[in-house]
Amino acid sequence: MEAKLTKVAVIGGSGYTGLELIRLIHAHPRLQLTYVTSEQYAGQKIRECYPFISPSINLRYQPLDIKDAFDAADTFFLALPHGISLALTPRLRKKEKIVIDLSADYRLKNLDTYQKIYGKTHSDKALVSQAVYGLPEIYRHQISSSSLIANPGCYATSIILGLIPILKAGLVNNAAPIIADSKSGISGAGRKAEATYLFTECDQNIKPYKIGKHRHVPEIEQELNLIGQSEIHILLTPQLVPIRRGILSNLYIPMRQNSPSMEKIWEIYQEFYHKEPFTLLSPLGSIPCIKDVYLSNFCRLGLTFDQRTNTLVVVSTIDNLLKGAAGQAVQNLNIIMGFDEKMGLSDAAPYP
Amino acid sequence: MEAKLTKVAVIGGSGYTGLELIRLIHAHPRLQLTYVTSEQYAGQKIRECYPFISPSINLRYQPLDIKDAFDAADTFFLALPHGISLALTPRLRKKEKIVIDLSADYRLKNLDTYQKIYGKTHSDKALVSQAVYGLPEIYRHQISSSSLIANPGCYATSIILGLIPILKAGLVNNAAPIIADSKSGISGAGRKAEATYLFTECDQNIKPYKIGKHRHVPEIEQELNLIGQSEIHILLTPQLVPIRRGILSNLYIPMRQNSPSMEKIWEIYQEFYHKEPFTLLSPLGSIPCIKDVYLSNFCRLGLTFDQRTNTLVVVSTIDNLLKGAAGQAVQNLNIIMGFDEKMGLSDAAPYP
Amino acid sequence: MEAKLTKVAVIGGSGYTGLELIRLIHAHPRLQLTYVTSEQYAGQKIRECYPFISPSINLRYQPLDIKDAFDAADTFFLALPHGISLALTPRLRKKEKIVIDLSADYRLKNLDTYQKIYGKTHSDKALVSQAVYGLPEIYRHQISSSSLIANPGCYATSIILGLIPILKAGLVNNAAPIIADSKSGISGAGRKAEATYLFTECDQNIKPYKIGKHRHVPEIEQELNLIGQSEIHILLTPQLVPIRRGILSNLYIPMRQNSPSMEKIWEIYQEFYHKEPFTLLSPLGSIPCIKDVYLSNFCRLGLTFDQRTNTLVVVSTIDNLLKGAAGQAVQNLNIIMGFDEKMGLSDAAPYP
Amino acid sequence: MEAKLTKVAVIGGSGYTGLELIRLIHAHPRLQLTYVTSEQYAGQKIRECYPFISPSINLRYQPLDIKDAFDAADTFFLALPHGISLALTPRLRKKEKIVIDLSADYRLKNLDTYQKIYGKTHSDKALVSQAVYGLPEIYRHQISSSSLIANPGCYATSIILGLIPILKAGLVNNAAPIIADSKSGISGAGRKAEATYLFTECDQNIKPYKIGKHRHVPEIEQELNLIGQSEIHILLTPQLVPIRRGILSNLYIPMRQNSPSMEKIWEIYQEFYHKEPFTLLSPLGSIPCIKDVYLSNFCRLGLTFDQRTNTLVVVSTIDNLLKGAAGQAVQNLNIIMGFDEKMGLSDAAPYP
Repeated sequence: MEAKLTKVAVIGGSGYTGLELIRLIHAHPRLQLTYVTSEQYAGQKIRECYPFISPSINLRYQPLDIKDAFDAADTFFLALPHGISLALTPRLRKKEKIVIDLSADYRLKNLDTYQKIYGKTHSDKALVSQAVYGLPEIYRHQISSSSLIANPGCYATSIILGLIPILKAGLVNNAAPIIADSKSGISGAGRKAEATYLFTECDQNIKPYKIGKHRHVPEIEQELNLIGQSEIHILLTPQLVPIRRGILSNLYIPMRQNSPSMEKIWEIYQEFYHKEPFTLLSPLGSIPCIKDVYLSNFCRLGLTFDQRTNTLVVVSTIDNLLKGAAGQAVQNLNIIMGFDEKMGLSDAAPYP
Repeated sequence: MEAKLTKVAVIGGSGYTGLELIRLIHAHPRLQLTYVTSEQYAGQKIRECYPFISPSINLRYQPLDIKDAFDAADTFFLALPHGISLALTPRLRKKEKIVIDLSADYRLKNLDTYQKIYGKTHSDKALVSQAVYGLPEIYRHQISSSSLIANPGCYATSIILGLIPILKAGLVNNAAPIIADSKSGISGAGRKAEATYLFTECDQNIKPYKIGKHRHVPEIEQELNLIGQSEIHILLTPQLVPIRRGILSNLYIPMRQNSPSMEKIWEIYQEFYHKEPFTLLSPLGSIPCIKDVYLSNFCRLGLTFDQRTNTLVVVSTIDNLLKGAAGQAVQNLNIIMGFDEKMGLSDAAPYP
Repeated sequence: MEAKLTKVAVIGGSGYTGLELIRLIHAHPRLQLTYVTSEQYAGQKIRECYPFISPSINLRYQPLDIKDAFDAADTFFLALPHGISLALTPRLRKKEKIVIDLSADYRLKNLDTYQKIYGKTHSDKALVSQAVYGLPEIYRHQISSSSLIANPGCYATSIILGLIPILKAGLVNNAAPIIADSKSGISGAGRKAEATYLFTECDQNIKPYKIGKHRHVPEIEQELNLIGQSEIHILLTPQLVPIRRGILSNLYIPMRQNSPSMEKIWEIYQEFYHKEPFTLLSPLGSIPCIKDVYLSNFCRLGLTFDQRTNTLVVVSTIDNLLKGAAGQAVQNLNIIMGFDEKMGLSDAAPYP
Repeated sequence: MEAKLTKVAVIGGSGYTGLELIRLIHAHPRLQLTYVTSEQYAGQKIRECYPFISPSINLRYQPLDIKDAFDAADTFFLALPHGISLALTPRLRKKEKIVIDLSADYRLKNLDTYQKIYGKTHSDKALVSQAVYGLPEIYRHQISSSSLIANPGCYATSIILGLIPILKAGLVNNAAPIIADSKSGISGAGRKAEATYLFTECDQNIKPYKIGKHRHVPEIEQELNLIGQSEIHILLTPQLVPIRRGILSNLYIPMRQNSPSMEKIWEIYQEFYHKEPFTLLSPLGSIPCIKDVYLSNFCRLGLTFDQRTNTLVVVSTIDNLLKGAAGQAVQNLNIIMGFDEKMGLSDAAPYP
């Protein structure tokens, strides 16, 4: 007997994250894609707007209509600009829909911080406190019984996963900052028609921006401070590199005096991650690169301990649209639904 | 009860095509990868040589040993340089193994042509006559009962699929040549460490080569002449473009006087391909591009009829490593085994 | 004694062509850049808007003011969208300014064609008849005594230069069309903030568009028909490739019966071009690629004669922003002013 | 009266640096290229091997012959793998030739360090002590009277220039390391035919390597320690990014307590560099990117002071083949010869 399929909606289905969600849901054996919204393309068949979509998807883009949405699906992925989820989520939760929000709206527990960053009052304190930060490597248990997931940002995912084990081990010297030098593919900016993201401007270029001021830093620090024993400061340099997908973060971690050996540090990470389906530690001496995770849901970590400077360098790399967005969202839904956590998620990167 | 898995070997598993075969076989619900050879990496775990490989593949590369090969598998994909298949295939066939040869060794029916192109006598006339050219769109029936498949070349696949319907319809003016202006991603050259294929040399460049002299032209003309009613000449310009994967061929087809209308021509193609799982015709007015097929097993075709010059322009695009190599090889095996032809083959291109 | 400098204005100085003009004029020993307009950036220093600009350029962008323009310069490069030159040129010519118009406004001699393509009546018949098509390889003499140059389009330059010698020689079979399969870098689209030109959309893609319908075809056919003895039809397939700059056109030319040998055809081209400073013929057997002309003002041509199909294949490649726009514009001004034609124009491509 | 031209040889003229030297020397008004060696291409015309070379260069590659070399030139650029310069330089110096060595052979003052890194005894202590490290921003005076220049490495140039002013000012907290996260274009690896540098492997990838162990670190630390007052440690992460040319280094500098304000730090840098022809400071709030220096001889620096972490972040970017190699070499020769330091060196980056 066939298992019953879970009906799934994608709200905001014409951007890069939305399109990845459509692809993943369609290929997932236990999910059924029933409702996809796009104001821009409302009324058109998805596969006529985007010919790369599976020809067996016959859905049309819908303009968002909350009643239709209620009828169409039980589970909602929100791939919307921040601020819009905030308006929609309470209505969906009132109808007991499962919500996986890929925006920043339910990530920050401190609503003053939200207001400072996004320039508007956060109207939904109650749901913020219920929302679970959707990083299974930390919150798997809470996710499994939650109905509202604040899906992490892509820089945040790559950085937090690279830091958890060493922070938990209490080996970091917090007198000094942790430096995160992160490179992102251009899809991280979404499908925005701005001159900055033109091929002509991005190709043959590397472009750092908002050094120390990226608005996802508070989300990162919030999570790190919940893990570590004292106040962690991250200095983040985001930068655009001429690749389509992928983030690679180099994390420079000042270690306490009498740091354990490289081998011992590696074991700390391995102990922490060896049962994880999607976070993989490279063997000692091996450094991961974006190709190793491209188009998969993996986060790969590689460790180098520089004794001369008593600094641990963690290279952490993900596909920003998968483990950094749509893939992690599906992983979270798998956990909620009690499916195999890897269901519908690729465990191999095509090459080259 | 689980279906029994077919044991599959990849002979030549460290090049781009071999790696794609490994990925596809591993993800295929009815195939089991049991034996992979590489002289260069013999003894090493595949996933330690290539970290992007699924972590659940524990096989090691083997040096080719024919006895081990016989024991290990029933079906063999040969991803070898031309000439080497020729030595191996007769031994595999003698043991009644299924052979899908991705080299050029069993494609040409005329052995003089083979000798002229590859500079050596072809030693295996008997098997050449048994081999079926593995293009399901033409030879599905013969493939289903064959045990030796000559898997088509990538340029050939893109060009032949773009031309079959109009040739069958007898509408081409063969007083003039058909021009194929084909652009290939750099993976078409394999994983060859030559200066020509360096990033520095390929990026920001387009490089035509061997105009009118590419050695796959005889393979293409052989197949076209079996389809069409008279002698077809193809003038092929291959060229390297700075993408990793994908071929896009523009086919310029001189039409007979009193050619039918664009709509009628489109219907001829649609009639021919509408039941095909992997060859898709774009709607009139729409032209496919490489992104539409990237990482899928599709061939997409778009038609433009230029009345001013009485020329039909067919744009034909594939992923050279999938429909142009490994994907088509698996499609052929699906046909032989009686599996769903689409089994294990992606029907969507990830984006962007 | 220093030669007096010619004062030069760039009208429309914030797009890719305008920026190249600024770079070339600034480095030119006999020109002085005195006036640059941009409505968007009016009032700002050019080098603050675009830090890659030479730090010794202290000019600010001006909003276009015709009186200021008259006072500021003797020579005007117009790098404007079509239609706007048409309004400006008569006023500049009335003041006896030299005008080099990089738009399409003065290229078409047949004003009905202009109206059909650009959807508006052409208001300036008198000046159209005075304007010289700025392709020095054909019109050097006329250019030298002209004050209004219609600078050719980039596709047009690459295609016309590849065809002149063989058309002049009367060897083309005009019963069949000439096919131009042209690939253009993304800068050909200008600095337009449209989703089509995003890095994410262009990278790993090749995208044919407007097959047989590009609006520069009439310009190309106009010039070819002035050269050849009878009506030439061009079937042009333009396509976007993931490079920033450069056009490579493959020209397929059906030859008359009893075509001369490859060597003889090569001599015809060599005879035609051997004194040209910027159009270079590759040796027989050698095919040029975009890297060979990148960032130079060269057009390079390579010839292959395919005897099997009686077709001459000419590969013609230029940098679309130099020989295809700003470089050719400066070359034209050099001719008008009586300077060395190569002055200020690079004769080498940096590598890689 | 024409000034007499200085006769210049390029020893090792077929790699990327050699080819850039050829291009620069040929375009330089006071230099004459008289002798270029390549063992691989000996006897062939340079422009037949590399068609992008100026057609007015008629030289052929020569096999290195020391007598011919003596006769041909007064000044020698050595673009050779390390170890080979060591054999050649003493002979050239004995004949009083000016030598600008682009290898690492004369950079390290400590010969034990040389031996440790390069695995061979350094045979030429006398000349090492005479050699001047060719970074004009520090050693202009010494360069002007030297005849043997050890031209800096590309990572080294970008890192040292970003650090000098703040080290000189004594504001760095040397209890903590300086972190250099550096991204290099693939041309940094030279024209090596290795699989690692293939287009297919580099495109859509970022690849850190040799973290904390790059062999140019001792060169960097040697120079920084000559500048600063105490022992500086650099933790360098080099990484390959999919661009052809360019290095961008993010330098994370831990500051002493009571660091001056951002404005004051900016003034320190401005004071140090404002007379430099090729090292430019971006305005406060502006961060340079590789496009701003691509194909120019500039180093551009941008400053951000992160108060939260008391860290100065310097973004330093150069074209690795120009300011990082051939351009700086010509700049050094200009200083030695008493030419205008900018002669023959571009002060603008073409765009896009």
